[in-house]
Amino acid sequence: MSEELVGNVLVAQSGGPTAVINSSLAGVLTEALNHACIEEIYGSLNGVLGILNENFIDLAEESQQTVRALRVTPGAALGTCRYKLKKEQDFERIIDVLMAHNIRYFFYIGGNDSQDTASKISQHAANRGYEMRVIGIPKTIDNDLPITDHCPGYGSAIKHIASVVREMAEDHEAMGQHDLVSIVEVMGRNTGWIAAGSALAKHRNSPENAPHLIYLPEVPFSTEKFLEDVQSVLQKNKHCMVVVSEGIVDGEGNYIAADANTDSFGHSQLGGAGEFLRNLVSENINVNARACKFGISQRAAATHASQTDNNEAFLCGQQAVKVAVSGQTDKMVTLIRQDSESYLCGTGLASLNEVANGVKAFPKQWINESGNGVTHPFVKYALPLIQGEVQVPYEQGLPQFAKLAKNVVGKQLSGYALV
Amino acid sequence: MSEELVGNVLVAQSGGPTAVINSSLAGVLTEALNHACIEEIYGSLNGVLGILNENFIDLAEESQQTVRALRVTPGAALGTCRYKLKKEQDFERIIDVLMAHNIRYFFYIGGNDSQDTASKISQHAANRGYEMRVIGIPKTIDNDLPITDHCPGYGSAIKHIASVVREMAEDHEAMGQHDLVSIVEVMGRNTGWIAAGSALAKHRNSPENAPHLIYLPEVPFSTEKFLEDVQSVLQKNKHCMVVVSEGIVDGEGNYIAADANTDSFGHSQLGGAGEFLRNLVSENINVNARACKFGISQRAAATHASQTDNNEAFLCGQQAVKVAVSGQTDKMVTLIRQDSESYLCGTGLASLNEVANGVKAFPKQWINESGNGVTHPFVKYALPLIQGEVQVPYEQGLPQFAKLAKNVVGKQLSGYALV
Repeated sequence: MSEELVGNVLVAQSGGPTAVINSSLAGVLTEALNHACIEEIYGSLNGVLGILNENFIDLAEESQQTVRALRVTPGAALGTCRYKLKKEQDFERIIDVLMAHNIRYFFYIGGNDSQDTASKISQHAANRGYEMRVIGIPKTIDNDLPITDHCPGYGSAIKHIASVVREMAEDHEAMGQHDLVSIVEVMGRNTGWIAAGSALAKHRNSPENAPHLIYLPEVPFSTEKFLEDVQSVLQKNKHCMVVVSEGIVDGEGNYIAADANTDSFGHSQLGGAGEFLRNLVSENINVNARACKFGISQRAAATHASQTDNNEAFLCGQQAVKVAVSGQTDKMVTLIRQDSESYLCGTGLASLNEVANGVKAFPKQWINESGNGVTHPFVKYALPLIQGEVQVPYEQGLPQFAKLAKNVVGKQLSGYALV
Repeated sequence: MSEELVGNVLVAQSGGPTAVINSSLAGVLTEALNHACIEEIYGSLNGVLGILNENFIDLAEESQQTVRALRVTPGAALGTCRYKLKKEQDFERIIDVLMAHNIRYFFYIGGNDSQDTASKISQHAANRGYEMRVIGIPKTIDNDLPITDHCPGYGSAIKHIASVVREMAEDHEAMGQHDLVSIVEVMGRNTGWIAAGSALAKHRNSPENAPHLIYLPEVPFSTEKFLEDVQSVLQKNKHCMVVVSEGIVDGEGNYIAADANTDSFGHSQLGGAGEFLRNLVSENINVNARACKFGISQRAAATHASQTDNNEAFLCGQQAVKVAVSGQTDKMVTLIRQDSESYLCGTGLASLNEVANGVKAFPKQWINESGNGVTHPFVKYALPLIQGEVQVPYEQGLPQFAKLAKNVVGKQLSGYALV
């Protein structure tokens, strides 16, 4: 145990929200109260932007009720940002602000970019001789952070998608008098983790159940192969459900369906990968084809969140505080799957630097030989992550979410001009 | 009380499934067991197609567990069809099959077209001098059946959409550093009932909450007005959430965004109304715009279903049996809102004929003056319909749905050639 460091906590959130990022925040708040060396518990509004602008709120003043409700609230209660710190001056300002508020513990909940930022803040504090402990808390529905077995946010995203796919499959079966091809476009710009997770919807992993075909960015997309795949499914089934990552690419690595703003193929790709595939089916196979695209709702689906994921997100928040108080810094909390018969998950630590510079690709051996589905070891990996259902409180028939009181912390410094 | 009619029951489902159509089926099964005059309880597979092809299953053989699970299973357990009976020969065949199986009670769960079919079957039976009672059970997420106060299926669809909009709003607020316009395309080809229901997501009906703008097919869509509306919202809010019916039309009544297969504007409408609006924003306002489209998942969302809606669907099934046994025929069960302080809903009857030929448009007085939202009386109408949360059983982290054993009833007649 290193020497006790007395001072204040600052916690911030960054990047795209998830269904459980606020559960990590609740974990930090809950644990911070247990340590006498921690005096004030502040939150920065909108990630590092809140530090630059000295926009802090006093989280210790939030009610117990609010902290409990945070655990099941999607979005990011503190607000997030995608602001990338570049200038040396930005970092100097950040250390100035942290020092002015006697922040000795900084917790940053986010993905790769956020861990990179946390690492740089830690270095700059060290260069200034300011003693501070910086711990990253993993968060991303993309599940692409290295070292950690999986990322908080992922289990809930795939539980949501697999649930919806299973509901849709009931509908398709009912309509099954005629051939129907249904395309579901899901998130995943660079890796296929999210699309792969839809495979859990297959009841007892039986091949006749939806989804019948899954296309990941890791496998170069071939139009001919896709049409063959669909026709092959329709020979056995009355309907064919396809799940596709928004980020599928062709043999040259170009997005199959670019965004309208950056469209390299002309306007016909406007709807994204899902609409592109639907169009392929409509134009080449004489069947009814539909597409849907869940968009942002995939990462906000608190009412479909996994209790396991929620608990692990909370645990990561708690653990961040524990290891910081015990003297660790410059680390991100990781999840470590125990080598046991039933699923058990503990925590570990990875250096921020290592996390910041890595991306965990979807393993090649978890993609089937035809490149249109996943193998059983992936199902074994993913299934424990979706166990348990989060109970969201309802009021007047709709989910109720936490609203922070946001008591403002007084500014100590003069304003800062953002570029 | 008319004379007791002894014989068998046939129940069938038709049209697009809903989250609660199987609850109506469970209502029929549960109530049918209470009446000694009812001997066998058969289900027809895929609506009238199952009658033409004599594809019946014995529903009395299904387990109690299955019937209970049916209440929370989306899709349509008997399968549905969109087959339109036209030829006189089809109707003759149907009466032959019903007579061969001594069907004295026929219950058809469906929308306008199904009630029309039920009415015609009833007439043909009467013409043949075959005593039979035909009762329709209302079903449609579109809520466009006349006479009934609302339709089973609608409450669950809008509870789902309002829940997802509220989850997405949390995400958008978190990202609120920059202007963001988010377009949500929902079902509703001809009427705006579903899009209107998203208004319930507004917390305490406060104007700053999402959704900020709602566009219905009842209001001719104007591009200029839309862009003004969005800009006006962005002056007050950091984000703007728009909900749009898939079926919005221009001043001439043409769909703004036709299906790719019937596209009258060229390929740029490929993604549907939502992508069309997103494109308008991207091209005319300098903000980040996104679109999503929930597709079929909207009518299959059993895990977001309304307990009130589910109970009413069950009640309609039960009531259909009760009134048929009591001597009624040629009617559809309707829902009647009681004139009381708190919400109370009873049932009534409407003639099949009347229902078959009507469509309930969204009332003009429930659309706001700007044509981009709804008025408070609509909220008062819709809010009771989404109360209560259905508890779907989960297994291995995902919703489990009923599967009928489908014990086949022996055929009495030779085959029939469908045209």
